[in-house]
Amino acid sequence: MNTRITELFGIRLPIISGGMVWCSGWRLASAVSNAGGLGLLGAGSMHLDTLAYHIDRMKEAAQGPWGVNLPLMYPQIDELVDLLIRRGVGIVFTSAGSPKKFTRRFHDAGMKVAHVVSSSRFAVKCEEAGVDAVVAEGFEAGGHNGREELTTMALIPQVRRATSLPLIAAGGICSGESMLAALALGAEGVQMGTVFALSAESSAHEAFKEYCIGLPEDATMLALKAIAPTRLAKNALFSKIAEAERQGATADTLRDILGQKAAKRAIFEGEVENGEVEIGQVVAQVKAVESVTDIFSRLIREYDAAKQRLARI
Amino acid sequence: MNTRITELFGIRLPIISGGMVWCSGWRLASAVSNAGGLGLLGAGSMHLDTLAYHIDRMKEAAQGPWGVNLPLMYPQIDELVDLLIRRGVGIVFTSAGSPKKFTRRFHDAGMKVAHVVSSSRFAVKCEEAGVDAVVAEGFEAGGHNGREELTTMALIPQVRRATSLPLIAAGGICSGESMLAALALGAEGVQMGTVFALSAESSAHEAFKEYCIGLPEDATMLALKAIAPTRLAKNALFSKIAEAERQGATADTLRDILGQKAAKRAIFEGEVENGEVEIGQVVAQVKAVESVTDIFSRLIREYDAAKQRLARI
Repeated sequence: MNTRITELFGIRLPIISGGMVWCSGWRLASAVSNAGGLGLLGAGSMHLDTLAYHIDRMKEAAQGPWGVNLPLMYPQIDELVDLLIRRGVGIVFTSAGSPKKFTRRFHDAGMKVAHVVSSSRFAVKCEEAGVDAVVAEGFEAGGHNGREELTTMALIPQVRRATSLPLIAAGGICSGESMLAALALGAEGVQMGTVFALSAESSAHEAFKEYCIGLPEDATMLALKAIAPTRLAKNALFSKIAEAERQGATADTLRDILGQKAAKRAIFEGEVENGEVEIGQVVAQVKAVESVTDIFSRLIREYDAAKQRLARI
Repeated sequence: MNTRITELFGIRLPIISGGMVWCSGWRLASAVSNAGGLGLLGAGSMHLDTLAYHIDRMKEAAQGPWGVNLPLMYPQIDELVDLLIRRGVGIVFTSAGSPKKFTRRFHDAGMKVAHVVSSSRFAVKCEEAGVDAVVAEGFEAGGHNGREELTTMALIPQVRRATSLPLIAAGGICSGESMLAALALGAEGVQMGTVFALSAESSAHEAFKEYCIGLPEDATMLALKAIAPTRLAKNALFSKIAEAERQGATADTLRDILGQKAAKRAIFEGEVENGEVEIGQVVAQVKAVESVTDIFSRLIREYDAAKQRLARI
């Protein structure tokens, strides 16, 4: 496969694993890179020392290109930016903040920069900021989400028309069929979260993976809009949040209900009923904990079959 | 193009115009049928006499197959069912109710039956009820919407796996690219609402069409969840609804804010700020009032170009 995304990052397949908090350590990211995709470390849940450790392990384990996802709202953002540059990281995916702030510095260090957006308006800002590629993520994605609530189907063609940037689709993509659909909409690569969060190599807790692979199709909902819209599985904690939201809860009330480190509790420590289970709408399509190589084989098999099916219509 | 949907309905192209309240009269539905698709009359906004009139005009104007969309919650539903059978309507798309109730009667009258669902759970019920096809409609669709909030990207592959029924995708589809994406996901036809609601032949008020074609990408939101989830443009009426919802409004409070015939006011009478502007998320991709023949030419041109682009990846 050959698109501007495979060319930009020097990868064989236009498949990227999202940099997911508590899931995307060196094991997952290196497995994705070794399977021909682009593996991302998720800096959002890492202290400076932890990220440095994962970068070092990644350098040993990854045979192909890889990168780091960096949420720009991070409190120690300047130190993290310095770390990435010092350690010679080649690719950074930034999110949750302005792409103007660090793109120049990353480029000066010879890095490639992609930025995550939820609307074509923000995609245009990315183009103005000079980023190399844009990830457009739809409403169906797990975890943090855009306020516009644009689905991948509605979002990708909009971004395609609004900018000339190489375009990665995210949200709702977990199979060869959905990968083909994203490329039909105008994307040149796909970023997948849920399917890799539940892979064998993900650093999520086994109890989290087992819980998620049993979930039905209506298992998730966008919540916490008063803080930041977040797609969560409807567990016991979610029920409390939903009840409070029905009664018009403020951001502070919601923060009290969440408590400390609610995402870590669920994803990393396996408290699946009383933590934030951040997972995408496609969770119902993931029925087993698969290895990354098995996921890639399946994606390619499904993609080829769907493409042949389309050709016959 | 040839799929189980074109075969089932005897149409040349697997493109269906949704039966939209206040938009889908005989002019729009016959234009779609004459362009090679399947045009649906929208019974949801018609009294018995009005529907009879539109059926009679349709018989004169349509050269190809056509049908009627029938929301099963309609108060005079038995009379409407009798009317369709008596007038020899060949195809009915049912929604908002159980597919078990009338499918047998329609089949006994020699009619084809499709039913609209928002989840694979309901699609399985359709298969059990013996319907001929299922329309799976995602969260991005305008107007009434499922409680599961499943997007088209997440929903179509789920329904594809859960049933063997001929499958029509709806929600977020307005272009050849999104049509190709829906078929990549496993659909065998597409139903479009927004693009036909804003067409020259739609019976919507000109002020409604003009208002909608100027809307930006974040113009719509799912509201009225306490009554029935409905995607609306964010006009003055929506602001009142949203404010009430933030304060935990009950269904009765929301009904008071809406007032009588809020959808009719906006769509048919052109009161675009103080009525319910039911329109899909893709409204921002519709930039002009086009004729149905121009829409079909564009769809086919875009579809062919996107398919060729995919073949080169």
